[in-house]
Amino acid sequence: MARARWGGHPWLVLLCAYAWGHPKSLDQRDDVRNCSISPPYLPVTAVNTTARLTALRQQMYTQNLSAYIVPDTDAHMSEYIGEYDQRRVWITGFTGSAGVAVVTMGKASLWTDSRYWTQAERQMDCNWELHKEVGTTPVVTWLLTEIPVGARVGVDPFLFSIDSWESYDVALQDYDRELVSITVNLVDLVWGSERPPVPNEPIYALQEAFTERKNMTCFSGTEDCFVLNHSELDFWPSCDEDFRWSTWQEKVAGIRSQMQKHPEAPTAVLLSALDETAWLFNLRGSDIPYNPFFYSYTLLTDSSIRLFANKSRFSSETLQYLNSGCTGPLCVQVEDYGQVRDSVQAYTSGDMKVWIGTSYTSYGLYEVIPKAKLLADTYSPVMVTKALKNSKEQTLLRASHVRDAVAVIRYLVWLEKNVPQGTVDEFSGAEQLEKFRGEEDFFSGSSFETISASGLNAALAHYSPTKELHRKLSSDEMYLLDSGGQYWDGTTDITRTVHWGTPSAFQKEAYTRVLIGNIDLSRLVFPAATSGRMVEAFARKALWDVGLNYGHGTGHGIGNFLCVHEWPVGFQSNNIAMAKGMFTSIEPGYYLDGEFGIRLEDVALVVEAKTKYPGTYLTFEVVSLVPYDRNLIDVSLLSPEQLQYLNRYYQIIREKVGPELQRRQLQEEFSWLQRHTEPLTARAASTASLAPLVTVSVLTILGWSV
Amino acid sequence: MARARWGGHPWLVLLCAYAWGHPKSLDQRDDVRNCSISPPYLPVTAVNTTARLTALRQQMYTQNLSAYIVPDTDAHMSEYIGEYDQRRVWITGFTGSAGVAVVTMGKASLWTDSRYWTQAERQMDCNWELHKEVGTTPVVTWLLTEIPVGARVGVDPFLFSIDSWESYDVALQDYDRELVSITVNLVDLVWGSERPPVPNEPIYALQEAFTERKNMTCFSGTEDCFVLNHSELDFWPSCDEDFRWSTWQEKVAGIRSQMQKHPEAPTAVLLSALDETAWLFNLRGSDIPYNPFFYSYTLLTDSSIRLFANKSRFSSETLQYLNSGCTGPLCVQVEDYGQVRDSVQAYTSGDMKVWIGTSYTSYGLYEVIPKAKLLADTYSPVMVTKALKNSKEQTLLRASHVRDAVAVIRYLVWLEKNVPQGTVDEFSGAEQLEKFRGEEDFFSGSSFETISASGLNAALAHYSPTKELHRKLSSDEMYLLDSGGQYWDGTTDITRTVHWGTPSAFQKEAYTRVLIGNIDLSRLVFPAATSGRMVEAFARKALWDVGLNYGHGTGHGIGNFLCVHEWPVGFQSNNIAMAKGMFTSIEPGYYLDGEFGIRLEDVALVVEAKTKYPGTYLTFEVVSLVPYDRNLIDVSLLSPEQLQYLNRYYQIIREKVGPELQRRQLQEEFSWLQRHTEPLTARAASTASLAPLVTVSVLTILGWSV
Repeated sequence: MARARWGGHPWLVLLCAYAWGHPKSLDQRDDVRNCSISPPYLPVTAVNTTARLTALRQQMYTQNLSAYIVPDTDAHMSEYIGEYDQRRVWITGFTGSAGVAVVTMGKASLWTDSRYWTQAERQMDCNWELHKEVGTTPVVTWLLTEIPVGARVGVDPFLFSIDSWESYDVALQDYDRELVSITVNLVDLVWGSERPPVPNEPIYALQEAFTERKNMTCFSGTEDCFVLNHSELDFWPSCDEDFRWSTWQEKVAGIRSQMQKHPEAPTAVLLSALDETAWLFNLRGSDIPYNPFFYSYTLLTDSSIRLFANKSRFSSETLQYLNSGCTGPLCVQVEDYGQVRDSVQAYTSGDMKVWIGTSYTSYGLYEVIPKAKLLADTYSPVMVTKALKNSKEQTLLRASHVRDAVAVIRYLVWLEKNVPQGTVDEFSGAEQLEKFRGEEDFFSGSSFETISASGLNAALAHYSPTKELHRKLSSDEMYLLDSGGQYWDGTTDITRTVHWGTPSAFQKEAYTRVLIGNIDLSRLVFPAATSGRMVEAFARKALWDVGLNYGHGTGHGIGNFLCVHEWPVGFQSNNIAMAKGMFTSIEPGYYLDGEFGIRLEDVALVVEAKTKYPGTYLTFEVVSLVPYDRNLIDVSLLSPEQLQYLNRYYQIIREKVGPELQRRQLQEEFSWLQRHTEPLTARAASTASLAPLVTVSVLTILGWSV
Repeated sequence: MARARWGGHPWLVLLCAYAWGHPKSLDQRDDVRNCSISPPYLPVTAVNTTARLTALRQQMYTQNLSAYIVPDTDAHMSEYIGEYDQRRVWITGFTGSAGVAVVTMGKASLWTDSRYWTQAERQMDCNWELHKEVGTTPVVTWLLTEIPVGARVGVDPFLFSIDSWESYDVALQDYDRELVSITVNLVDLVWGSERPPVPNEPIYALQEAFTERKNMTCFSGTEDCFVLNHSELDFWPSCDEDFRWSTWQEKVAGIRSQMQKHPEAPTAVLLSALDETAWLFNLRGSDIPYNPFFYSYTLLTDSSIRLFANKSRFSSETLQYLNSGCTGPLCVQVEDYGQVRDSVQAYTSGDMKVWIGTSYTSYGLYEVIPKAKLLADTYSPVMVTKALKNSKEQTLLRASHVRDAVAVIRYLVWLEKNVPQGTVDEFSGAEQLEKFRGEEDFFSGSSFETISASGLNAALAHYSPTKELHRKLSSDEMYLLDSGGQYWDGTTDITRTVHWGTPSAFQKEAYTRVLIGNIDLSRLVFPAATSGRMVEAFARKALWDVGLNYGHGTGHGIGNFLCVHEWPVGFQSNNIAMAKGMFTSIEPGYYLDGEFGIRLEDVALVVEAKTKYPGTYLTFEVVSLVPYDRNLIDVSLLSPEQLQYLNRYYQIIREKVGPELQRRQLQEEFSWLQRHTEPLTARAASTASLAPLVTVSVLTILGWSV
């Protein structure tokens, strides 16, 4: 989900400094608007917004507003926005995922970043000015030139994070303009019958097999647990430990216990992020693309549970599962989604204290809670607890990654056969991958829009092919695939970059340095509670050594059939400290604008590390199980320790994925896996040979253990 | 200087998580007070504060205050506090450097950390309660139990940083108590004739040789410049570059230029930190221990320069140097130190905007500037500009480190001869070191209190020996020396740890891992503008690998005859990003409580790195020039690259310090240096042998360049 607190979608944050490519000149092109001529030229893709703006201005007039801001988020600061919430798209015509619109009585303006400038010129009519800066400051600066002192600027407070509201509020107040909270969305009022319907698909409970840890036995060395041994480290499975909660009743009890132990004694937790409610009740829905969520809020108090969602969407079985209808502290009272603000306001009229996560709670809820009755943390206890996967969740996430590896390996084998024939393009490839994933158990759709990018397209941020616009895959180019699946047992996210022909020396070097970064961070041993920000440079060092780098983050949390970009885990400054049981992606890259892009992304579990001297130390256990491209690895750049780690990882892939391929009688894929996981040696990248023995001897001279 | 914004003194921040040792039981001891018996027992070291408290309470009564807070800082948030400002010491009797006192009409309380608990019990009488927590929260929590709703809590706003004030203010307001700014310090009113006099030593201008870059020629490869070559890196000297300002007039012009270019168009910069004014005018004084500063503020406007300091302290030459008496924009108007608040208030009554560094500006000045007339950055432009040393400053700092190395090497040679005879203790050793430093040109005292710590004492934070309390140095123990000098051309800070006998295998391993951390961070190549926080873990990795760590920061900025802990450079989250021309210490360590402590600290200059592929990358050039202890290095733990780096560093020490020792006819020291900088080899730690050739051959097999 998005967290406007951090200035946008996590994925955008992660990708924001990618090379954007070179916007082409728009002069004289017939696919973009030209508002400087009379009459203006509009391409067929432009949307006529005159009537929409007139209607909106009428509403603004009624509310005595000089301006109205239409942001690009929903009331839950979600990463992906349902069509029902695409207000900014509808009022502007512009369908890009990022952009803020502001309408005054005389003008209408859109602010978006360089990825979308051309698209905006194609889709907007001449009612709209395009502004090429982003952030609050340029919007406010423009507003100050357009509206007089004393003017009122309206916003829907549900579409603003607390920080975003305060940022606008302070800036406008400084210049004697007023930000006004209008709880009825004015775009919704004029959208009318064109607006997509409120999502009404059933909300369902996860099967017990995907939540409860009953009957689960797990011992070191069994299929369920990885036990890695290399150098002075052991990775321990989490199976034998006392783990958190599985049923929603246990989760509710656990969160209530945190409330009771908190020195400020909150009486309730208010859940605004959609994955918070989904996780708490083990419920899922399909309101949001790529995320199995449903529109909802939860007010969990010390004596009641109020779930705000449309009651008609629950089957009687699900209502029964929620103990709905009874009145005890473990009965869920389902209240109307639209009632949340009033209910929270009524609740806080008493002697209560409400605990919220400020990063993703909307100003619309925040403003009704008196400050003295607020316990404001960056993340709610649900968000933090969710980040620490219990043993069952760990096992499920591992299992989903084994099946996901099967699908990705099938795709890589398929590509190896079909790309040389010139029959695959970025889009058809992505479709084929989705077909393979679709044949895996428990598959429930992609976890985000597949980035299937060949050649120079891989250097573009947010690139995804379309049926109309795509590039053919070729043995002469590198191909970057960043994709993931939603499975009932886990969410996956993996990036591999491959080359079927002869890569250049620089491509091999860059690829190998990205790989070294991935390896060095994955095998790092660090003290418990270290922040990801403190260690992410280990994923960059091999690139920095020669003057290369990448402009995005190094990883993000991931959920169990929840968000593929799950806060608050990761390597950025606003992520929480690393702890055992967290999952994070590790994804260094390198991008050469106009040429190629490399990213190697794995999902890893934070596990305890056994160190020579006693202490609470952590490391990562990689759970993505697809080999890297041997064709792109320059083994001479790897240290003995890195090589040893890589070969151990390949051994694990064989142990975990090999049997699954055999069980499924995917013999060709099994052979491919064996070939691609042959131990690499210091002297021979592509084939296993006698070299390992030689290397061992040389290393022994130097006193290294191999 | 201290920055209360970060919760205390930088050095405290750096050291705060050191092992503190085990406080002994205080029962039945005659060196500490016992307030639980009647009459109370007071040791001779306790100070009778009854009369002082009575007088203070009389002042509080006059001001209608229920409580008065006496913090431990001065009006400039200085790291070291002059005796004149030791208000908390005087009112409590407790002389420790950290502690907050609060007096109510009925009680008096001191909060200090575990380092000082015993000392407080020795020095305070039974008027005082000792509280063992630190921070605003415990003080406020206690206040709420002692004073009623509506009560007024007085503070001297000059002794509170903005953050510290706001932290108390918000917490008290929440519970209906009021924080009140009383600009006359109530302790000063009752201190009377016992109070040390206002410092009145002359304020002097630095000699031109230590400021101006006239006639300075500097080429790559000359004495003034280091040119290191190793692996794929070159370190460039900064000599040939256009560098910032040297005379105070140039500095003033430079800061004014930054004011003009700033989008918010500030009309003035207000300088509160003592090193800001000292740096701006190239003036020094001696009001503060270890820091060559004088009590002062500066209000630098676009058309005037107001220096707030006692005019009688300037000689006529210095006043002439400052163009004092004239009225142009490059004339310095010297105004009375005590006038600053009124002057700033009067200035901001006009259409002005004042630029301040919020981290170290006192609330007493902040509160008189209307918010609309304030440009608040964490650091003022002077603080940030000062961090980027010009070529002259770099040359001077390098030169001071060569002489400082001579003094430290003389001391290490002296120790090697005298420790086995059992005639040296921690205190006499520190005196001997100061004697050696005193024989160096331009020496002007220590830059901080020497940490001369043998055996288990080295594991204690803030340990410094005294004439009365110290430990004998022995060949059976490790010895840690952290010390530095103030020289007219630069400030130094270096830590070496040595063992003259047979260290244990664990001591050697720990020492070597600390050394590896120092090496790995020192040779790191990283993109320009990387924050120190992102890379400091490279100094920890070798320790983390085996479950070891250290609990302090990894380094701090350092000045040119200014602060030894100079903000805002360093490796913490509140430091600014690394840039060419900054100096920082690099100082990993390891501490085993009750046994020993290791720290290896060097000062390094941030320089450009030449990378294989083009880009703006940085690395460090170490300017501290004292070899590490060969007796403690386990060479088998070093990688070929680390060994190569270390030997190259030793080569530089020989090139830089060797000729100086010879010039001074310090032949014994020269021989010692040659012995201790013999190239280390993978197989032989203590002697140079044929091993390097063998190593090179082996490494060549592996494709490493040596």
